[in-house]
Amino acid sequence: MKINNLGTPSALVDLDRLERNATRMADHTRQLGVRLRPHVKTHKCVEAARIQTRGHFGGITVSTLAEAKGFAEAGFRDIIYAVPIAPQKLTGALEIGLRIDRLAVLVDHMETITAIEGIAGAHATIFPVWLKIDCGLHRAGVDPETERAVALAKRLQNSIHIDFRGVLTHAGQSYDAVNRAEALAVAQEEVTVTLGFVDRLAKEEIGVPEVSIGSTPTISSAESLEGIDEVRPGNYAFFDVFQSAIGSCSLDDVAFSVLATVVSVHPEENRAVIDAGALALSKDPGPTHVDPGCGFGRIVAVEDQHPLPGLRLSSVSQEHGEISGPGTAALRPGTLLRILPNHSCLAAACFDSYKIVRDTEIIDQWRPFRGW
Amino acid sequence: MKINNLGTPSALVDLDRLERNATRMADHTRQLGVRLRPHVKTHKCVEAARIQTRGHFGGITVSTLAEAKGFAEAGFRDIIYAVPIAPQKLTGALEIGLRIDRLAVLVDHMETITAIEGIAGAHATIFPVWLKIDCGLHRAGVDPETERAVALAKRLQNSIHIDFRGVLTHAGQSYDAVNRAEALAVAQEEVTVTLGFVDRLAKEEIGVPEVSIGSTPTISSAESLEGIDEVRPGNYAFFDVFQSAIGSCSLDDVAFSVLATVVSVHPEENRAVIDAGALALSKDPGPTHVDPGCGFGRIVAVEDQHPLPGLRLSSVSQEHGEISGPGTAALRPGTLLRILPNHSCLAAACFDSYKIVRDTEIIDQWRPFRGW
Repeated sequence: MKINNLGTPSALVDLDRLERNATRMADHTRQLGVRLRPHVKTHKCVEAARIQTRGHFGGITVSTLAEAKGFAEAGFRDIIYAVPIAPQKLTGALEIGLRIDRLAVLVDHMETITAIEGIAGAHATIFPVWLKIDCGLHRAGVDPETERAVALAKRLQNSIHIDFRGVLTHAGQSYDAVNRAEALAVAQEEVTVTLGFVDRLAKEEIGVPEVSIGSTPTISSAESLEGIDEVRPGNYAFFDVFQSAIGSCSLDDVAFSVLATVVSVHPEENRAVIDAGALALSKDPGPTHVDPGCGFGRIVAVEDQHPLPGLRLSSVSQEHGEISGPGTAALRPGTLLRILPNHSCLAAACFDSYKIVRDTEIIDQWRPFRGW
Repeated sequence: MKINNLGTPSALVDLDRLERNATRMADHTRQLGVRLRPHVKTHKCVEAARIQTRGHFGGITVSTLAEAKGFAEAGFRDIIYAVPIAPQKLTGALEIGLRIDRLAVLVDHMETITAIEGIAGAHATIFPVWLKIDCGLHRAGVDPETERAVALAKRLQNSIHIDFRGVLTHAGQSYDAVNRAEALAVAQEEVTVTLGFVDRLAKEEIGVPEVSIGSTPTISSAESLEGIDEVRPGNYAFFDVFQSAIGSCSLDDVAFSVLATVVSVHPEENRAVIDAGALALSKDPGPTHVDPGCGFGRIVAVEDQHPLPGLRLSSVSQEHGEISGPGTAALRPGTLLRILPNHSCLAAACFDSYKIVRDTEIIDQWRPFRGW
């Protein structure tokens, strides 16, 4: 079946682009001498994760226990759940982990460690745990400059119920970069802060087994990762308008798009509407710090994803996407358009399934692990 | 089961508040002398739609054909699909409509009318169609001041394949109001523009069978709707932080919330993280025109939804909600919080099911019609 026979909105994954993105990152990380543990939250699909882990050790990173469970059942045996774990979720995580080699969790608070010890002790097992540090994003993670950070590492090292895996961080502030050079500076900061903390722990006689870092902007731009064991970029599988704007990729690398149909056209008022709104694209505002006029996604041609000038996706409401610009004169009710999303992780999560395409031919369908 | 035994994030619907909101709107529209045809896109649930249509004629409004199909199968027999229809969706709409009294569609372009006539003719049937006009939102809808608007109405009236239902509009610009008085002014504009167009058509000897208008802000504030036949508010079933900020309701009326767990706390840095991010709350920026510091939802107490001071949901990423403020000192890993969303329609659409609660007791579970 061809793309233009699909109902809309539909989620499209361009398999050639996905494979190219995956190969490039696999080669790049191999050259950097680090293990690649892709974050699969972008697509939540077994098929995509298998492509990303080709030629690497097979470890993955997930953002929910629903993903952990789904990927574990599909045969992935080394998983990190990369959101600090709620104490209430420990039993569920333990049950998943016991069925594979390892489901590691991350912590940044002493009370969570106490809860982990309680659960692991009650089940007479040992829980694999990473210490999450904050290297500048100021979201989750303990400040590595504090005494608390050292105390957490010491407790993890000494606990009989915990397999201390190492120190982990995520430089999400790389999304504030305006180009590849700025992303590279953040990448260096990510490495420096983390290795500085490892040195500090060494002076306290706390050994750090491994160091895990990474985001798509920092790993895409990184030129050297000495001292780092593994990296966890994720978005690079699909990329998106945001990553293209800050230099992680070109717009032509974007492997995820949303097919939409024009349903209303008033070219004399420079306006049109498509049937893909906030529930198909998310309301992510995009790279406004680089391109204030970016709108809610980039409108491209259905056949080959070439950008269509004169069309701006200026607004999204629940099921309406509003298009403005002189290009509306070329639209008709029923015209198909393809939208490259601002943020592919959030747009992909709007769909229960993705249509897998090569050029304009649909060759498969993949189902993500939804929910929590 | 009690709320605090749920996994997180979970979607909660407070049944008492939903029933109160539904009763108030049902009474209000009855006093105004108009039919209530609630827009069910906010919840997409049969159970909620049945509560909203109690004591009214039973008609509803939907935003997708998946909703139309689901509600038709559940016994709803008079439905308007309130997004201009793509020509490619006409056959699907026709099939649904033939199984109930009426699935009406709306149009704002001559080519769509031609496509409808083609499909209706081929099936030897008559398609119920509304003319969508733009009363100031400038999204979909034909400008009622134009000759095109009159030409569309004339064609709808004269077509042997079309049952011309009337003129329909939606004053979504009411969301730009900063208070109830401004929303009332938009409500008056919505009525005036629409009835002005009906008068203009009358002079051209085009009879308009019915007039349908409405949004939650305009209908909540409306004091008179003379000349209007039916109204289509939807969000009022749940309300949200946005509607409360512009005066459609009080914060205590909000019937939809997301239960979340604190997973990271660093009170000395005024930061904490919950496990509800953009995939549980959407990235809707909220009523920033009224309250620039609104954040991504309002944090309230789990037990009774009273607002918790000193806690601001300052940012959301995929699975992280970042909290700032002095109230973080009272949080621990594992603390449960309830979040009233900025936009309940978008937050509800993040979930495959809702937990129905009275006070803190879970009494039921509802499933929305997802997708398209």
